Amino acid sequence: MTVLFAGTFARGGAAAAVSDDAWFRALLDVEAALARAAAGTGLVPMTAADAVTAACADPSRLDLATVVAKAADAGNPVPPLVRALQDAVGERDAVAVHVGGTSQDILDTGLVLLARRAIAAIDADLAAAAECAAGLARAHRDDVVMGRTLMQQALPTTFGLKAAGWLAGLDGARLRLAEVVASLPVQYGGAVGTLAASDGAGVALRAALAEELGLVTTAVPWHTVRLPIADLAGALGAAAGALATVAVDVVLLAQSEVAEVAEVGEGRGGSSAMPHKRNPVAAISARACARRAPGLVATLFAAMEQEHERAAGAWHSEWPALTELLTTVGSAAAWLAESLRGLQPDVPRMAATAAAAAEGPLAGALAEALTAALGKGAAHDAAADAVRRARESGRALAEVVAERADVDTAAVLAAAAPDVGEAGAQVDAALAEHERLTEGAP
Amino acid sequence: MTVLFAGTFARGGAAAAVSDDAWFRALLDVEAALARAAAGTGLVPMTAADAVTAACADPSRLDLATVVAKAADAGNPVPPLVRALQDAVGERDAVAVHVGGTSQDILDTGLVLLARRAIAAIDADLAAAAECAAGLARAHRDDVVMGRTLMQQALPTTFGLKAAGWLAGLDGARLRLAEVVASLPVQYGGAVGTLAASDGAGVALRAALAEELGLVTTAVPWHTVRLPIADLAGALGAAAGALATVAVDVVLLAQSEVAEVAEVGEGRGGSSAMPHKRNPVAAISARACARRAPGLVATLFAAMEQEHERAAGAWHSEWPALTELLTTVGSAAAWLAESLRGLQPDVPRMAATAAAAAEGPLAGALAEALTAALGKGAAHDAAADAVRRARESGRALAEVVAERADVDTAAVLAAAAPDVGEAGAQVDAALAEHERLTEGAP
Amino acid sequence: MTVLFAGTFARGGAAAAVSDDAWFRALLDVEAALARAAAGTGLVPMTAADAVTAACADPSRLDLATVVAKAADAGNPVPPLVRALQDAVGERDAVAVHVGGTSQDILDTGLVLLARRAIAAIDADLAAAAECAAGLARAHRDDVVMGRTLMQQALPTTFGLKAAGWLAGLDGARLRLAEVVASLPVQYGGAVGTLAASDGAGVALRAALAEELGLVTTAVPWHTVRLPIADLAGALGAAAGALATVAVDVVLLAQSEVAEVAEVGEGRGGSSAMPHKRNPVAAISARACARRAPGLVATLFAAMEQEHERAAGAWHSEWPALTELLTTVGSAAAWLAESLRGLQPDVPRMAATAAAAAEGPLAGALAEALTAALGKGAAHDAAADAVRRARESGRALAEVVAERADVDTAAVLAAAAPDVGEAGAQVDAALAEHERLTEGAP
Amino acid sequence: MTVLFAGTFARGGAAAAVSDDAWFRALLDVEAALARAAAGTGLVPMTAADAVTAACADPSRLDLATVVAKAADAGNPVPPLVRALQDAVGERDAVAVHVGGTSQDILDTGLVLLARRAIAAIDADLAAAAECAAGLARAHRDDVVMGRTLMQQALPTTFGLKAAGWLAGLDGARLRLAEVVASLPVQYGGAVGTLAASDGAGVALRAALAEELGLVTTAVPWHTVRLPIADLAGALGAAAGALATVAVDVVLLAQSEVAEVAEVGEGRGGSSAMPHKRNPVAAISARACARRAPGLVATLFAAMEQEHERAAGAWHSEWPALTELLTTVGSAAAWLAESLRGLQPDVPRMAATAAAAAEGPLAGALAEALTAALGKGAAHDAAADAVRRARESGRALAEVVAERADVDTAAVLAAAAPDVGEAGAQVDAALAEHERLTEGAP
Repeated sequence: MTVLFAGTFARGGAAAAVSDDAWFRALLDVEAALARAAAGTGLVPMTAADAVTAACADPSRLDLATVVAKAADAGNPVPPLVRALQDAVGERDAVAVHVGGTSQDILDTGLVLLARRAIAAIDADLAAAAECAAGLARAHRDDVVMGRTLMQQALPTTFGLKAAGWLAGLDGARLRLAEVVASLPVQYGGAVGTLAASDGAGVALRAALAEELGLVTTAVPWHTVRLPIADLAGALGAAAGALATVAVDVVLLAQSEVAEVAEVGEGRGGSSAMPHKRNPVAAISARACARRAPGLVATLFAAMEQEHERAAGAWHSEWPALTELLTTVGSAAAWLAESLRGLQPDVPRMAATAAAAAEGPLAGALAEALTAALGKGAAHDAAADAVRRARESGRALAEVVAERADVDTAAVLAAAAPDVGEAGAQVDAALAEHERLTEGAP
Repeated sequence: MTVLFAGTFARGGAAAAVSDDAWFRALLDVEAALARAAAGTGLVPMTAADAVTAACADPSRLDLATVVAKAADAGNPVPPLVRALQDAVGERDAVAVHVGGTSQDILDTGLVLLARRAIAAIDADLAAAAECAAGLARAHRDDVVMGRTLMQQALPTTFGLKAAGWLAGLDGARLRLAEVVASLPVQYGGAVGTLAASDGAGVALRAALAEELGLVTTAVPWHTVRLPIADLAGALGAAAGALATVAVDVVLLAQSEVAEVAEVGEGRGGSSAMPHKRNPVAAISARACARRAPGLVATLFAAMEQEHERAAGAWHSEWPALTELLTTVGSAAAWLAESLRGLQPDVPRMAATAAAAAEGPLAGALAEALTAALGKGAAHDAAADAVRRARESGRALAEVVAERADVDTAAVLAAAAPDVGEAGAQVDAALAEHERLTEGAP
Repeated sequence: MTVLFAGTFARGGAAAAVSDDAWFRALLDVEAALARAAAGTGLVPMTAADAVTAACADPSRLDLATVVAKAADAGNPVPPLVRALQDAVGERDAVAVHVGGTSQDILDTGLVLLARRAIAAIDADLAAAAECAAGLARAHRDDVVMGRTLMQQALPTTFGLKAAGWLAGLDGARLRLAEVVASLPVQYGGAVGTLAASDGAGVALRAALAEELGLVTTAVPWHTVRLPIADLAGALGAAAGALATVAVDVVLLAQSEVAEVAEVGEGRGGSSAMPHKRNPVAAISARACARRAPGLVATLFAAMEQEHERAAGAWHSEWPALTELLTTVGSAAAWLAESLRGLQPDVPRMAATAAAAAEGPLAGALAEALTAALGKGAAHDAAADAVRRARESGRALAEVVAERADVDTAAVLAAAAPDVGEAGAQVDAALAEHERLTEGAP
Repeated sequence: MTVLFAGTFARGGAAAAVSDDAWFRALLDVEAALARAAAGTGLVPMTAADAVTAACADPSRLDLATVVAKAADAGNPVPPLVRALQDAVGERDAVAVHVGGTSQDILDTGLVLLARRAIAAIDADLAAAAECAAGLARAHRDDVVMGRTLMQQALPTTFGLKAAGWLAGLDGARLRLAEVVASLPVQYGGAVGTLAASDGAGVALRAALAEELGLVTTAVPWHTVRLPIADLAGALGAAAGALATVAVDVVLLAQSEVAEVAEVGEGRGGSSAMPHKRNPVAAISARACARRAPGLVATLFAAMEQEHERAAGAWHSEWPALTELLTTVGSAAAWLAESLRGLQPDVPRMAATAAAAAEGPLAGALAEALTAALGKGAAHDAAADAVRRARESGRALAEVVAERADVDTAAVLAAAAPDVGEAGAQVDAALAEHERLTEGAP
């Protein structure tokens, strides 16, 4: 990713959570935990495990340049990393390095750790966006806005209910990510999954390693059964979709002709050629980031077909695809949080649009109310006259109707009033659910 | 799907579960349940709801040809279906038709019902395949086979452990589908989600409708927040991947040069041009079906960006994509069940291949054992001689070594014996997990 | 595809061009042409080839039910089809059936024929849509409409230039499809591509077969080198994108708040719940159809990795994916042609919106023009006053300005007049290019 | 892309061609060419254009850090880049900066230049791979190898014909890329495509700019009609597929059980845990890189639906997707060139496998030849005896048959000889086509 686009597509904490340093840290955390787990199960001396842990904690002691240089020829970075670790701890303590492991054990477990950390960053931005959505839902619980279906004005709803829908999506995305994170398994099986190099303590060591890293253990290795990667892909793809649907709503509500929200950001969104324009850059960028997700998700699902005990290519293709998926979803979440944080709803404009949309029904209700007294034709003319006067005076038809003495104006207005049904109760329910989720969070 | 390919790509129960009839039934089940729920909440007379239920139970009373003819112009089939229902029950009972609903309420809930039914069919085939995998794992718990990484022979494992990996994938796919099915929500919100046409009883009606259909209720509608569709897409994509990775293993093990399994099916897999060939048609077909999934999954994730209160196109694109995804995953599951049901492992061939792969290490162990007595050079020559004699006589090197009196042959053989580590224990663990899952099933 | 959605997703001629009948016809056309080509190269008697041609021309003589029944077990429908043909022509003439061919030769060539026919149907709808776009470009060459970037009003352009952009996309899509169709190759190589069963006349026979079918011949078979499929996928995906971008413009221009176009169709687009709504159903449906394409394209590109001389699954996965891609792109083209055919631009509304957008610049120009006489402050007040008076009287600011005697109103109005630059010349260029393309067409 | 994986996924010249520096250079090349074109059409002084050209030629004079810092807020890097250029050339010459352009004009044209340069690098690696394939086809024109269909041994072919198929795929991919590169258009239209800021010289300026950069001009801008991007996506996806199908063949031929080729690379492909293993790392890596392509291609096709005069997100999503697609296809090409460069075919092993596969037919031919003299039963026994003796003596059955005096051994061997049909002639044709292509190249 060139730096020219990093501000757009590698925004927020997730990008940092998949950096070079983060990758080294994840792999070294696994090697360190493996050494400790091996010591715990009695396979190696605790002093050797401590030496490995110390070396892993200080990457500056390792010759990482050589690891980078040799990774491609080795097919993955773990073989040269293991060598670098062995060199760093010396021959005696090298017994505690990479005990019984194969490259994929370290790389898969490292990827899982990396994903967990990146998702923590994504979740922080999703939570911030959700909090904004909750705030909007609460603040605008009863503010009327036109509902739009198939991009046409339909019937009125409330801005609170719109925001509650956003909230439900963002909270739902968080829940799915949390479930996946809680189920992420350790990988440990040795060269072909038999644990043959673990001196009979492999199953125990796998459990200990899982315990060390806060991961789940499994009955058998998942070297070529990639459900955990599919789970990550699915939950991240769902998060991207939940973000995109909020983003497109913001973009549409900010259209010049709609103008029911504006995105307020410092120094953002101006146009060099057109100084009067104000683009909702954050929502647009969130949408752009989210749109990269489905293709990456497809790559990861397509990579699930893996051969025998270790795949010849499909496995490798997961690394950049998952890394980029984490980055772009994180970036979308960061942008959406920015967008919602600065979102300014124009409540009077919403009301005016809804009122304008209601003028047809209102004129009809007025005509009907006058019919008994005036007869159908004259009643229709009187209503048409009211519409004309309202327009000429730049006032709302409702105002003009309210002034009449010849009808039960309250009844007429009520008949044509915007009916938002149980919007408010639904907003309350969504907020209550959000609070349960938030309280339940660690 | 042309009939020429239906046997391959629309196999098994899932295809039937998304047929024309199944679609009508799903939509009518929702309308019937809505009528009953509306009666239950007091919005319409129970007699009217009963009339609607009766009409929905007998599609032959409805003018479905007109529904089909008008669906595209209406944008979706629900408006003409509602009209057909109203016509069928007559003016009095028509009050109980489509109470407070919008087309998307019926279509989304119907799609959810349809998906649930199709997944039940998929699950039956996945369960059959899993049972076969469990049987193979049990029967071949300790049978040695070469493990292969990056498509190269690596170290020995057991066929039982291979099958246990397949089992874990298939069971994992079932678990994910079951979780999604259990969380599928009802859709009910009215035209723009406010429940404004539900006379104040909308929230209660939504809960009653969910209850009628065994679905989950929600705080707000999910008209444009498509997490339930994403959940289906993700779990079906994961199932496809789990199926594909077993299928590719079968294809690879059945290769002429490997020949460790054969697929036995009646009258299947012959080649018109080459009568000596026996193709693993079921596994190949499973793989073909599974490969259609990632693209369809991507379509569904990309469709999550939906505008305002009802999307202008993205929503519609879900219908064929999800239907085809259900069909192709079901078809893959049906084929894989057939493949595993007729799978014939060639255990002696597996053993012979593993033994051949072990001859290098065995010759080394022999030379080392002879070194003390003969010196390094002569020991090496003696080992090479043993290898030559074995080859010339067409016997295994182990046999030749076992005849020697000048070394501790048991120790030599043991040193070079295939070590499958904790393969057996892991098989047992996978089978135990499978039994827990199977017992826990309804 | 259930009939409930066929009107939406299997519309237009392309769906018919990939029907069961069309598939049988394509495969039989290849077998017939192969028989004739074999006779032409002297491999079989012409009388036998004539018998095969006759049998292929009358599918009712063939036991196609058995072909369907046996296709899946055979792995593809060609082996039972060949048997049915042999049975139909009798033992003597059976020598001219399937001469030197393998199933993939027939299926690939048949798929190519099918695609060519479906693309002819797609092209007809694309051409109709392009003609409508050309008509709009011509009719509205100079009609001003607001240009919108990032969904914000930007600067004025013309509706003619918008339509010319649509035209360029539709014509470009047609050109790409035509190029691919012109390059489609025959497939003929025999079981493993050596032409070993063609009695030394294989290369000549391949050329003759290509000649018979109007296809290109190749140096070697493309059994596992799938560039022709990739070409189809790419051009169809491009067509989908070109259609989608027109469709989304129609949807956006038809928004209630924009209302610069309306889609007029007979009995289409009404809403059961909301009779006042008019949805642009054709454009929405075009968009829905087009959105299915990228996932199908990805499936076809992913299927290019094919093993050895015939792939075990990837090849098969092309059949439904390409069939559906042809169908959905054809359906999108049919819908877009319908949408543009009934498109009603509201030119006064476009002009009014552009004029409203220009009032800011116009007020500025007035203030500047008055500054010399009044000084900056008073000039600003006078301009503000003009704006206020225009609003109160419901007139355009330009009208009010035009009445002033104290400034060079022509100069002021010119400075703030909508400048559409070289829009007209560009429209002319696009139309000229369109005419060259249309004349060049067969 | 972390450095840990750059050696695998960002290999070859394409990665460098999309670096930060390359991006800046591409954008600055466009601004410089625009200044010269503007001077050429008389819009700005040539001295000013020269100043802009000089500034663009020396990025060290520009404050690029600020460009990077402000790019995301501006929505894209062009606005701050234009400002940096204006600052660099000073007020007088700033008239020649960005004449009449909008951000998208510069970014799209820059992306096109970048793609052209990256494709030149990809093409160099594709050409190297194709040259290797041609060499293999030539050297092994008549070397027999078993053809394999559906992963089963089928009938013999030649390694030359296999390599000729690879060659056809690689050359075909090159041709498609060359056609797309030759058709790449300039982008120039100004803010909304009218050329309104180009003082009436916009169409001429667009043509001059195209001329400056060696690009094609267009009738109208393609701001939201993304066929050029689709063309790039399609041709790159096709190249990935052509590379992948060669790579999977290498991986399969290198399988331990097949062992018909080996990949020889310096210090590559070893396994830390299993020193006896030799993995075909280059082919595996090529496959891994190629597998990322279909998802990225889908992202680009999905991004074709762009709104009005500039899309709100879809446009932006092209930048990383296309950049990564160029990188990963380039990386796949670099790896495949390395793989084929070091590919060692084991011709005797191929022959032995083909001979073994032919022993069944050979025994049949022997039995048939002996039948006249011995009667059916005895002839069958004699043939079976010959098979047994061959096996016991470790010789080929053909050798044993050749020694017999009781039959016309030449006829028997000929009847069962591998028939590779017109493999040789097809190899020659593919090589001739390759030479035409190579000579035709610039």
